Amino acid sequence: MKTHQDIRENEFIRRWTAGFPRAPYQLNDLQQADAELFLAGEAAAYYLAVTTDSLVEEISRGIYRDPFTMGWVTVMASLSDLAAVGAQPLGMLVSMVLDERQPADFQEGIRSGMAAALQRCGVFLLGGDTNRGDCTVLTGCALGQVPRQTPLTRMGGRPGDILYSSGPAGLGNALALARLAEKPEADPLETLYRPTARLAEGRLLRDYASCCMDSSDGVLATLDQLMRLNGAGFRLEAAMETFLHPAALETAAAAGLPSWVMLAGIHGEFELIFTVPPQRMAAFLQAAAQANWQPLQIGVMIPECQVNQDGKHAAVFDTARIRNLFDGFSGDLETCLEELRKCQMEIN
Amino acid sequence: MKTHQDIRENEFIRRWTAGFPRAPYQLNDLQQADAELFLAGEAAAYYLAVTTDSLVEEISRGIYRDPFTMGWVTVMASLSDLAAVGAQPLGMLVSMVLDERQPADFQEGIRSGMAAALQRCGVFLLGGDTNRGDCTVLTGCALGQVPRQTPLTRMGGRPGDILYSSGPAGLGNALALARLAEKPEADPLETLYRPTARLAEGRLLRDYASCCMDSSDGVLATLDQLMRLNGAGFRLEAAMETFLHPAALETAAAAGLPSWVMLAGIHGEFELIFTVPPQRMAAFLQAAAQANWQPLQIGVMIPECQVNQDGKHAAVFDTARIRNLFDGFSGDLETCLEELRKCQMEIN
Repeated sequence: MKTHQDIRENEFIRRWTAGFPRAPYQLNDLQQADAELFLAGEAAAYYLAVTTDSLVEEISRGIYRDPFTMGWVTVMASLSDLAAVGAQPLGMLVSMVLDERQPADFQEGIRSGMAAALQRCGVFLLGGDTNRGDCTVLTGCALGQVPRQTPLTRMGGRPGDILYSSGPAGLGNALALARLAEKPEADPLETLYRPTARLAEGRLLRDYASCCMDSSDGVLATLDQLMRLNGAGFRLEAAMETFLHPAALETAAAAGLPSWVMLAGIHGEFELIFTVPPQRMAAFLQAAAQANWQPLQIGVMIPECQVNQDGKHAAVFDTARIRNLFDGFSGDLETCLEELRKCQMEIN
Repeated sequence: MKTHQDIRENEFIRRWTAGFPRAPYQLNDLQQADAELFLAGEAAAYYLAVTTDSLVEEISRGIYRDPFTMGWVTVMASLSDLAAVGAQPLGMLVSMVLDERQPADFQEGIRSGMAAALQRCGVFLLGGDTNRGDCTVLTGCALGQVPRQTPLTRMGGRPGDILYSSGPAGLGNALALARLAEKPEADPLETLYRPTARLAEGRLLRDYASCCMDSSDGVLATLDQLMRLNGAGFRLEAAMETFLHPAALETAAAAGLPSWVMLAGIHGEFELIFTVPPQRMAAFLQAAAQANWQPLQIGVMIPECQVNQDGKHAAVFDTARIRNLFDGFSGDLETCLEELRKCQMEIN
């Protein structure tokens, strides 16, 4: 079985948390769920779900230029973690470090992006904290609750389970690539990107999915993490043309990159990546259709601890190498992309 | 009645939050409690309490040098907000931006400071988030619960209520002054400072206090805020020699400053500042004694909307001017202290 130690980020988190005892009333162990699930009392009918997420490098590296996007994603990143455990949001807090060297409308952009994202999801801002600094750091903290019977976590997928994505992928990495490469880009890429947390879909999944995680770190990192947690891998079967967002396909083609690279970067798009046992598939698809939602069937869970691709180009992805490549990525994009190409090993 | 508009920070917060509707299930309005109090359902027997706080300027301005203090205060700042609403903690999350230019033991210091503070308070770390950046930003988020019958907020104080502090004040400002002035300092000032959230005291206060707020922004800012919220002011009656920590008195004397300046700075020490109606005073003092706690009686609530001082040096503090002086304080300490001296107007 693949271990977490192979992944530098996982090892870092393990070391950081080694001195902190786990709460006996917490459902999930380290990394096992997108949001922390715990009981506020033995008799509680609901798990409380709580998560926190800071937006830092997307701002400092210029992946987002419009402050509206910064505010929007701060909200959506935390709400997406609630979505991935099937929680109903109770509210949000934001803690901000605001860079005083920015023009006045910069703050206003952040503010209106946050307000619009909260309104889109019907979630209330409960409180927050503001600070001055030499950098911009936006931290969201979201709270929710989920019925005690049906929490959704990253655990529970089994070989044979069908692999889905809540929607098309690759827009996050398309935006990151365009910005980091400073290449001409389709004008509305940043606007197009702005993700919406899949809250209703996550709640629906409580009754059908065996495991779930959002694609905030990119699809391949998500599959790698689910593989390590569940001790079973994935075969991607969907054609990239159907799984990737058209703008992501375009961006890859324009950069002369294979389209799977849009799954490999670590700037994801907050889709839910989840598995459904075959016997629940029909009922799941019916429920999804009733909710006007078309999830994408993208593959299947396999006994082997690897992430591979079937179809025209059968291949195995070295997902550990991919994840470690981006861990501490310091900005030399060409070298990184060159390395990345070596992480897909064609089988046929 | 004094309005919040007089205080630049309050006005900033009002403008920021103007576009965000309040949750109908939230107990407190803007600024009315140290932690946000809300119901997770009509039938809930408990309010949930949640708060977030980032440590930024204490680090960037060199007020803390030891990373252990940074980790420690990150935890205590959020837990102190729970203490001020009388909540029983359910757990904490931390989101960190770690500056990679710092030496390796810097992170380890933060980690062990957080772990020690959580252990001191018997609180579990539920989860968190780590990021890389060019600055150090440590954000805590704490959750707790408080019986629905007895939430404690900043609201409810009335003229005639007795004013208390949970312990001696001034250490926070003594440390800030020493570090900003780069003066020789009593060696253990930073170690001496490390505050402990008054969690047990806060829970005890649920049955006795009429309003409560922690002194994280300094005592005078706390009294000013309580005054604006309750429409009634305070007369400080305690001698500075009994209210201030000995090291704070020493620091003020060594700097040639009047001792009340240790109450005026905005780097507080997380004591609880609270009022008790006279008819509950005896029962309160008995309960406190049973808990081995000696709260300091420091004054009384008065009908006038001002903060004044009785005793040897009767005076009125211009608390709005004091608070605005530190809002956006950019580091010219001498000018600031000169201005500050003018904010106390002797009466006799």
